[in-house]
Amino acid sequence: MPAVASHPPDHLVRPLVRALDAYVPGEQPQRGRLIKLNTNENPYPPSLKVIAATRDAVDGRLRLYPDPSAARLRMRLAKHHGCDPANIIVGNGSDELLAVAVRAFAEPASSVSASRQSAATVQYLTPSYSLYPTLAESHGARRNEVPLEADFTLPLPAALRRGRKWDFGAALTFVTTPNAPSGRGYSQEELEYLCSAMEGVVVLDEAYVDFASGNALALALSQPHVLVARTFSKGYSLCFQRVGYVVGHRELIAALAKLRDSYSVNGLGQVAALATLDDLPYYRANVKRIIKTRTRLTGELGALGFEVLPSETNFLLVRPPAPEAATWFTELRARKILVRYFEGSSLSDRLRITVGTDEEVDTLLRAVRAILRSGPSRSR
Amino acid sequence: MPAVASHPPDHLVRPLVRALDAYVPGEQPQRGRLIKLNTNENPYPPSLKVIAATRDAVDGRLRLYPDPSAARLRMRLAKHHGCDPANIIVGNGSDELLAVAVRAFAEPASSVSASRQSAATVQYLTPSYSLYPTLAESHGARRNEVPLEADFTLPLPAALRRGRKWDFGAALTFVTTPNAPSGRGYSQEELEYLCSAMEGVVVLDEAYVDFASGNALALALSQPHVLVARTFSKGYSLCFQRVGYVVGHRELIAALAKLRDSYSVNGLGQVAALATLDDLPYYRANVKRIIKTRTRLTGELGALGFEVLPSETNFLLVRPPAPEAATWFTELRARKILVRYFEGSSLSDRLRITVGTDEEVDTLLRAVRAILRSGPSRSR
Repeated sequence: MPAVASHPPDHLVRPLVRALDAYVPGEQPQRGRLIKLNTNENPYPPSLKVIAATRDAVDGRLRLYPDPSAARLRMRLAKHHGCDPANIIVGNGSDELLAVAVRAFAEPASSVSASRQSAATVQYLTPSYSLYPTLAESHGARRNEVPLEADFTLPLPAALRRGRKWDFGAALTFVTTPNAPSGRGYSQEELEYLCSAMEGVVVLDEAYVDFASGNALALALSQPHVLVARTFSKGYSLCFQRVGYVVGHRELIAALAKLRDSYSVNGLGQVAALATLDDLPYYRANVKRIIKTRTRLTGELGALGFEVLPSETNFLLVRPPAPEAATWFTELRARKILVRYFEGSSLSDRLRITVGTDEEVDTLLRAVRAILRSGPSRSR
Repeated sequence: MPAVASHPPDHLVRPLVRALDAYVPGEQPQRGRLIKLNTNENPYPPSLKVIAATRDAVDGRLRLYPDPSAARLRMRLAKHHGCDPANIIVGNGSDELLAVAVRAFAEPASSVSASRQSAATVQYLTPSYSLYPTLAESHGARRNEVPLEADFTLPLPAALRRGRKWDFGAALTFVTTPNAPSGRGYSQEELEYLCSAMEGVVVLDEAYVDFASGNALALALSQPHVLVARTFSKGYSLCFQRVGYVVGHRELIAALAKLRDSYSVNGLGQVAALATLDDLPYYRANVKRIIKTRTRLTGELGALGFEVLPSETNFLLVRPPAPEAATWFTELRARKILVRYFEGSSLSDRLRITVGTDEEVDTLLRAVRAILRSGPSRSR
């Protein structure tokens, strides 16, 4: 029998996991009076009806398991989207379902031969959602990064025809649409063209679609290899409760369901999401306000010398005038305004700024003018 | 360029996933007045303080992301268990962390050579938690099932010495302690002996430990390869909100953290779990009541001809007298009492019955006597 164990723990962890850099989420300060424009939360709270319905559900039922398949929510979503509940899977935020998609559709690279590496390939545009490379690497999949054009548009159609960078056989392609962190929207025609070129599964990650002029849900309901991922976090002010879903062909949905944790969607999240779908005009009005504020912020930052990309989301990707983006981040932070700075990346000359309320945006603009006027703060 | 895609979706899903049987959770009826003794929920609601704290948190904060690392909850748990927050990871129920453990510690079998299959081996006792084989298979790991003795005790120490069935080099060993579905507890000495024999990671899954006479947390804090998994679901009446955690060496915890979804623990779950830790006497009193009811139910079923295993959990595994277990399940269900029947398994002559309130147990016992007296119900 082996002797009593006192192994150094690093021998216990898979080499793949030891080599992994963890995904770094945006900062979530739990205290203090910061204006939080760094992780693209909706600046408006859930509706009073959603708050009331969720509060009412906080009772003895907390002792019970939630519905593992979120059947009522799936039925309601199916009605909303004009499909069948079997075309929908609900997850613990869309993040869970993106992770599950990698494990459902892409092989670990070590388990397929060199000639079949497309079967182990997870493909995505750069820059886009920085979770994709983490998900691919933690599964041991091969990554294929396809750079966006210099103006952050899709490399289409010429580049697609040349096959430059794209792996048409990739097991899984993620497209954030509209894109984060650029904010750019892609047209339905472009997306359809791109999806049609792919032989593997394409996930259109529509986390920000509620702020866009269009959506690609029809592709998920017509093309058997296309899935659309949605979330209640952004357009529906429900980050705290982690509810997302994926729409698509029932066989792909069934594959995701096999790998998802049975009880991954908490009960109060299901309650809140259902109540949300009963109160959509409130959320549509918020989206309109955010788009109006986005237009104003785009104009005002532009007038102050910022290069601002056109946005179909609830955030702006901007290239500030001097000083450097890192200094802007620090200066704004010193003024209790938190924005997203992508340190050490190709975007290190830019900032991503969530569109807050009009009051928050006014405060931001005052701070920007003060920094432009007086240079770096001495207050730290 | 490839032609427009119209692939049959089954070619898009990994063969491993196509071959997978999904984990089948216990039935969670969402309507009706059933007495629910099938999935081992606590029959008592969360405390009034927990309900109040959770309700109070249902406000505008729902629009914000929760703390991704559950820092406050980890600090509170660390204090409770006498360890450091770095020794603790919180998950979306302990199920999430069990799944992550498989991916952190076991290789997919296809990626290691035949001589290194122990590195791809997930090992567990049978019968125990039926999620383990699902997790192993969905990762492509090798399964090593070690049968419990006929009386559901651990195959120790003779069997361990002979090496019968055990793979001492297994990358990951799961031990449900006390065990489900048998209800049996294992002694600290047995567990220590077993852990010491293993060269890989051992997860002691203590989901039901609050109903047991002891626990093995000290092993996780002293042996670098041992992790203990806990949940707020059972002893703390919080199934609905999905909060579990794992305690152990900080390097193993860090490995799990790399693979866990960043925002997997919903905000209201964190709030409820924190409030729970501030109100432990309420929960200890409930556990005492459940243990008292368990003792009574064990005695009464025994007197009625049921073979009842000794239980250190909040359920009993019983072998009913004639008719067959399947008939008992159906007869009880017809009387609106739901218990767990393991169709087509080695336990198909048994039922697992959650210890409910005294009133629920009285109703159960009346139904049992009626079935014994009059034979099958004619009411269906």
